[in-house]
Amino acid sequence: MTPVSDRNHRITFQRTPQGLPVPEDFGADTTPIPTPGPGQFLSRTVYLSLDPYYRNVMKGSQIYAERLKPGDTMVGETVAQIVESRHTDFRAGEFVLVKNGWQEYALSAGQGVRKLDPAVAPVSTALGVLGMPGLTGYTGLIYLGEPKPGETVVVSAATGAVGSTAGQVARLVGARVVGIAGSDEKCEYAVRELGFDACVNYRKGDLVQLLKAACPAGIDVYFDNVGGDTLAAVLRNLALHARIVLCGMIESYSMDKPPPGPFLGPVVGARATMRGLVVYDHLHRMDELVRVVGAWIRADKFRYREDMTDGLANAPSAFCRLMQGRNFGKTLVRVSAEHS
Amino acid sequence: MTPVSDRNHRITFQRTPQGLPVPEDFGADTTPIPTPGPGQFLSRTVYLSLDPYYRNVMKGSQIYAERLKPGDTMVGETVAQIVESRHTDFRAGEFVLVKNGWQEYALSAGQGVRKLDPAVAPVSTALGVLGMPGLTGYTGLIYLGEPKPGETVVVSAATGAVGSTAGQVARLVGARVVGIAGSDEKCEYAVRELGFDACVNYRKGDLVQLLKAACPAGIDVYFDNVGGDTLAAVLRNLALHARIVLCGMIESYSMDKPPPGPFLGPVVGARATMRGLVVYDHLHRMDELVRVVGAWIRADKFRYREDMTDGLANAPSAFCRLMQGRNFGKTLVRVSAEHS
Repeated sequence: MTPVSDRNHRITFQRTPQGLPVPEDFGADTTPIPTPGPGQFLSRTVYLSLDPYYRNVMKGSQIYAERLKPGDTMVGETVAQIVESRHTDFRAGEFVLVKNGWQEYALSAGQGVRKLDPAVAPVSTALGVLGMPGLTGYTGLIYLGEPKPGETVVVSAATGAVGSTAGQVARLVGARVVGIAGSDEKCEYAVRELGFDACVNYRKGDLVQLLKAACPAGIDVYFDNVGGDTLAAVLRNLALHARIVLCGMIESYSMDKPPPGPFLGPVVGARATMRGLVVYDHLHRMDELVRVVGAWIRADKFRYREDMTDGLANAPSAFCRLMQGRNFGKTLVRVSAEHS
Repeated sequence: MTPVSDRNHRITFQRTPQGLPVPEDFGADTTPIPTPGPGQFLSRTVYLSLDPYYRNVMKGSQIYAERLKPGDTMVGETVAQIVESRHTDFRAGEFVLVKNGWQEYALSAGQGVRKLDPAVAPVSTALGVLGMPGLTGYTGLIYLGEPKPGETVVVSAATGAVGSTAGQVARLVGARVVGIAGSDEKCEYAVRELGFDACVNYRKGDLVQLLKAACPAGIDVYFDNVGGDTLAAVLRNLALHARIVLCGMIESYSMDKPPPGPFLGPVVGARATMRGLVVYDHLHRMDELVRVVGAWIRADKFRYREDMTDGLANAPSAFCRLMQGRNFGKTLVRVSAEHS
């Protein structure tokens, strides 16, 4: 297999966005395609994953290892196909999960790289339901949320990669699941395709009242992907001994200063527990995710949805759309075709 | 034993305070001293406990059973001495823990009443360190905070009845204890008398920096009595896997609308756990408190301090002082003398 272009196209970090990101916060250029040295392989990016946490990286948040300077390649998780290898464990043509970032080609020494078998599952799922977003939804819900059969579980960003996993897992362990999403189309998808018991559109009326109606016995578990007003509305509907899994605060990622949070009085009244989830603590459960959720997918008990954009050049606008909550499913960019 | 006055003096609820309470929010009058019927006893209040949660009752907060109308006797926990009894289990002269409210005399049918033995501990401790505030500090710290030896435990309102208990218990299970208090005098008391390792005066400089200096390895357990800016400053100094016990939000009690809370991003970053504490869930541990902390007190390993005001007429101003954070120790009103 040989490169289809003689240059490496890439998208760069240009500047920290003001508020929500805009395409002008990114740059684009080409660099020479590098040549693998001993112990390295060159891979061509097939799928680039777009994730809200990149917005946090773009403002230099200290919880991430990466530091971006203007002109640096944007960081990002990718599925790639090996073009040329001087690494004994990897061969040309193999699919790998690797952090190539927002570019067509990259070198790797194999550290942290996971091989993917296209016969087991579509390789793109390694960036979604059978990858970090799936692991986030699965472990957060099961190990931090600890839902019991018959309990009411609420999930925000319900049709996203994390939320749709958390919600379906809750359903499959016997809980009643109520989603929160930003359009009627998403809500309909959550109920019809994902099997949620109900889904409320937060753009349609007072969320406190919408949740009260959808969760008459109160909320036992809340899987929070957004923070902000949504979290505050949930707190006003807690059942006794509720568990709140704080996963992401997408709302805050596009802000320079952290916004205030919700009044915590209801947490005391409900004797509730709030726990912060960082998926990196649960990497040892990746095999469990692939085994458990993989089996549910094969048995058609579990659905996933990809929001696919074609072409690396369109990655910035796709990312901006994601940060506006206008994605629908796991957001991916198809950078090149899979070759068999 | 006979009544020393022929009227029952009492303090009434007059109106819901605007912000911090003022003495004019209360009324005062006298009523006839009631006569016990069959199965009842009449007791004379010796000590009235003043607790911040009364402020919440005064605004009709739904988490309390009591509802106050103007002219009603203010509710409150008391230690009283029985004057006359037609109840088979109680005799004149006995000391009891009973909810007489803010008045000199009241009837009781014995429900929820605890007998007190002045030979075991001063009866006033049943309202403080060996009563509900002590139970709050002890169970919250031990069962929700779960401190480990060598960990750093931070306690706000450090010299109050709850905080001084939580802090000393933390010290006695091997943790390093840092208090937060509102005066140098209180801080000195926390270190010198209560044995805290350090105490920061939140009125002196930036609390985030003060805590960073006092807790260089981060905060493992925070026992929160106040909420608000103090909680926000603690969140910016969390150690990994920190536990935050949300006990009281005194700051908010004097507000009509709940204020916003702290940004919860750091809770995610630290994989922290926040848990709401309601002491009524731990009433079954009262014997444990009296046994464990009682023994520490007798061994002079554990100190308590009472902020005593003489005379029921001074209860409103003492309560206002408490809500301004100007008390120093467990706030009590001596309503009448103990008779032996």
